[in-house]
Amino acid sequence: MDEEIKEQIIELLANKRYSNLYKYMEQTNSQDISMLFEELSEEDMVLLFRLLPKDEAADVFSYMEPDLQEKLINCLTDKELKLVIDELFMDDTVDLVEEMPSNVVKRILKSVNKEDRETINELLKYPSDSAGSIMTTEFIDLKINMTVEKAFEKIKKIGLNKETVYKCYVLDIRREIIGTVDVKDLLLADKDKLIKEIMDTNVITVSTLDDKEEVAKQFDKYDVVALPVVDKENRLVGIITIDDAIDVLQDENTEDFEIMAAMTPTEDSYFKTSVFKHAKNRILWLLLLMLSSAITGTIIIHYENAFAAVPILVSFIPMIMDTGGNCGSQSSTLIIRGMAIDEIRLRDFFKAIWKELRVALIVGTVLAICNGIRIVIQYQNLLLAIVLGVTLICTVALAKLLGCILPMLAKKLKLDPAIMAAPLITTIVDTCSILIYFSIAVALMHV
Amino acid sequence: MDEEIKEQIIELLANKRYSNLYKYMEQTNSQDISMLFEELSEEDMVLLFRLLPKDEAADVFSYMEPDLQEKLINCLTDKELKLVIDELFMDDTVDLVEEMPSNVVKRILKSVNKEDRETINELLKYPSDSAGSIMTTEFIDLKINMTVEKAFEKIKKIGLNKETVYKCYVLDIRREIIGTVDVKDLLLADKDKLIKEIMDTNVITVSTLDDKEEVAKQFDKYDVVALPVVDKENRLVGIITIDDAIDVLQDENTEDFEIMAAMTPTEDSYFKTSVFKHAKNRILWLLLLMLSSAITGTIIIHYENAFAAVPILVSFIPMIMDTGGNCGSQSSTLIIRGMAIDEIRLRDFFKAIWKELRVALIVGTVLAICNGIRIVIQYQNLLLAIVLGVTLICTVALAKLLGCILPMLAKKLKLDPAIMAAPLITTIVDTCSILIYFSIAVALMHV
Repeated sequence: MDEEIKEQIIELLANKRYSNLYKYMEQTNSQDISMLFEELSEEDMVLLFRLLPKDEAADVFSYMEPDLQEKLINCLTDKELKLVIDELFMDDTVDLVEEMPSNVVKRILKSVNKEDRETINELLKYPSDSAGSIMTTEFIDLKINMTVEKAFEKIKKIGLNKETVYKCYVLDIRREIIGTVDVKDLLLADKDKLIKEIMDTNVITVSTLDDKEEVAKQFDKYDVVALPVVDKENRLVGIITIDDAIDVLQDENTEDFEIMAAMTPTEDSYFKTSVFKHAKNRILWLLLLMLSSAITGTIIIHYENAFAAVPILVSFIPMIMDTGGNCGSQSSTLIIRGMAIDEIRLRDFFKAIWKELRVALIVGTVLAICNGIRIVIQYQNLLLAIVLGVTLICTVALAKLLGCILPMLAKKLKLDPAIMAAPLITTIVDTCSILIYFSIAVALMHV
Repeated sequence: MDEEIKEQIIELLANKRYSNLYKYMEQTNSQDISMLFEELSEEDMVLLFRLLPKDEAADVFSYMEPDLQEKLINCLTDKELKLVIDELFMDDTVDLVEEMPSNVVKRILKSVNKEDRETINELLKYPSDSAGSIMTTEFIDLKINMTVEKAFEKIKKIGLNKETVYKCYVLDIRREIIGTVDVKDLLLADKDKLIKEIMDTNVITVSTLDDKEEVAKQFDKYDVVALPVVDKENRLVGIITIDDAIDVLQDENTEDFEIMAAMTPTEDSYFKTSVFKHAKNRILWLLLLMLSSAITGTIIIHYENAFAAVPILVSFIPMIMDTGGNCGSQSSTLIIRGMAIDEIRLRDFFKAIWKELRVALIVGTVLAICNGIRIVIQYQNLLLAIVLGVTLICTVALAKLLGCILPMLAKKLKLDPAIMAAPLITTIVDTCSILIYFSIAVALMHV
């Protein structure tokens, strides 16, 4: 939204120029209005909200953040609330019921009719990671023996405020899907034709209890804008629309980023999460990894005599640890991301290992040579350069292999591959590479 | 696709049961058929492709990987190729031209008419990160003085094989967009009504040269399935559909994962990228970070006397480095991701720092206490526990502050915040934390 329009709206509000305001609001998107609301005082927000046409008001409402929705609901009369709720899609109403405190939920449920109340209660029962939890119950159902003309009548009567009017589902008497019809096919068809003559019987469905992330990937794979959801008896109970699928995809990506940075993922946004919650999400992995790195410390102290004799050996510990960590991070990220977007599959296990091994040898050799040159120039010590070179090649190979093997192993064991990311792999590689480093140093330098 | 159906199709192919095959293909999605093609021999693939109905064939073709497309084109006659290209959407044709070697491109361009060839050449000129590069030139345009009836005639005539038939764009004589009409509004309207009476004048447009990632985010923000693209003179030149926007979003996420793991991002998939390309993408950052960590080494050697007197000091280097790295990784990931999905903005700078500082104090204190208990039990050395405790609290605070400040600074400087991720921050925090550690140790332990 233009800053200019925003300022003008705020100015008009201050000067109570309501008719001009109405004109401005008409030109503005629901999403932008809902963002504007965040910057207004409570009274101005309610005032502006009351100026909106009924269907636009519901639209704006559905884009608002939960805390703002709560504030607004508390300012609305029961009658106004009912008008808004009536216009909301079922999935947005359910989201609202899930987010609001119990006194607001009571008011919301009071404002819907008995049938909708039952639907809401049904939808609330689906686990939060299931397809059922993101579906809406509004869709257009047709019968096979309807004519195209009758179908249009039905669409006009019930379909125009549905989320996806353009895909109709053909159901049999047990409410199982036997086909779909696109509105464009209805438009093209002769009006006396029967639905069964034009329907597409090749239907992709998902089940209410399917994992919502898997369902979201289907949208990407099949390029569809909606997917029908069926229950255990294979009856159509709702549809999922692409806007909700995109939200799931983005949330899943955010979750992967968080897990890969050694955090417990959270659904709340950064600023909505309290300081204590942030600390709690981060502390567990930090503690675990901190205590694990004590093992590396024990190995170092085991070689006390070596670095007492050649103190400079200690100064290369950071370089070896960092390089190992970075190499492991690169490989594990590629493998984890590749599996998340289905580019790498478990059956590619050996292919991936072979690839990483060759990459590791090239990368390790280049690093060893560059570092070797630096050591020889700085310390005139060829033996030290060789010790570090061999250590680097071994470390890089180990890091890249672990970065490849561990995420795939996690997937095989039905764990989230993202936990096998940089932090955990770094800690493991640290221990091994320090052990390799001192073993080689002791063997070659006789300390 | 069911493994069972796949096996049956392969068996039918082997037994040359073509009529049964046809029946199976009808029940199968284009995307699944294109995936099946990857597992077939070249002859079987061409055979099966020729069995597909014309429009389905083009659909299957558009979902195939470039190397498979090339193989198939080389087996098709010019006439067959023309049939496929004619059915492709313009954006898919352009993608194809970009991916194929020049001899294939020549055949493709020969098979399209002059007008389309000009359009393809125009589209090829847009930079690969621009909105223009992912748009298609097929859309339905209406005039303001058309009646609803005329509009339907136009849609039926030209619109049915367009990518989004359900959104029509109302243009003036200069081809500027003055409104949009949803097909559902046409369906609902009286057939004598004029387009200008029912059109929505509140149009969101993007420009051909806009960054395609920013455009993709607009889909998420405004919940639309298509966005019109205008040129510098504000004329409508194409539309972007949501399936392409999702691909951009996913590619952008993959790019962020790669940059955050210290790699040069690549558009190719993991296995399509050669071993040398992989090595090249990874070596630059590794070298840079490896040489930077030599600074940390220099600091350590500066404190040679300290660890000569108390050798156990060396054994805590990995723990301090790992903890600092992990803390920096957590914060930078949250900030980078938060900025990528527009949850954290630059104006939140001080709010974010204040939050991270408080989280750091809690996390640092907990880690210091847990580690302190371990040290006292293991070594009966309270002074050592205090030195490490103070070091941990400082390291965590520093790591979390840098993890917060550097990505936001990068954004302010118009750099990609993702470069300020774990690897770089770890290296910086390492140097500082080792310096802090030995300074505190020397001060408190008088070594």
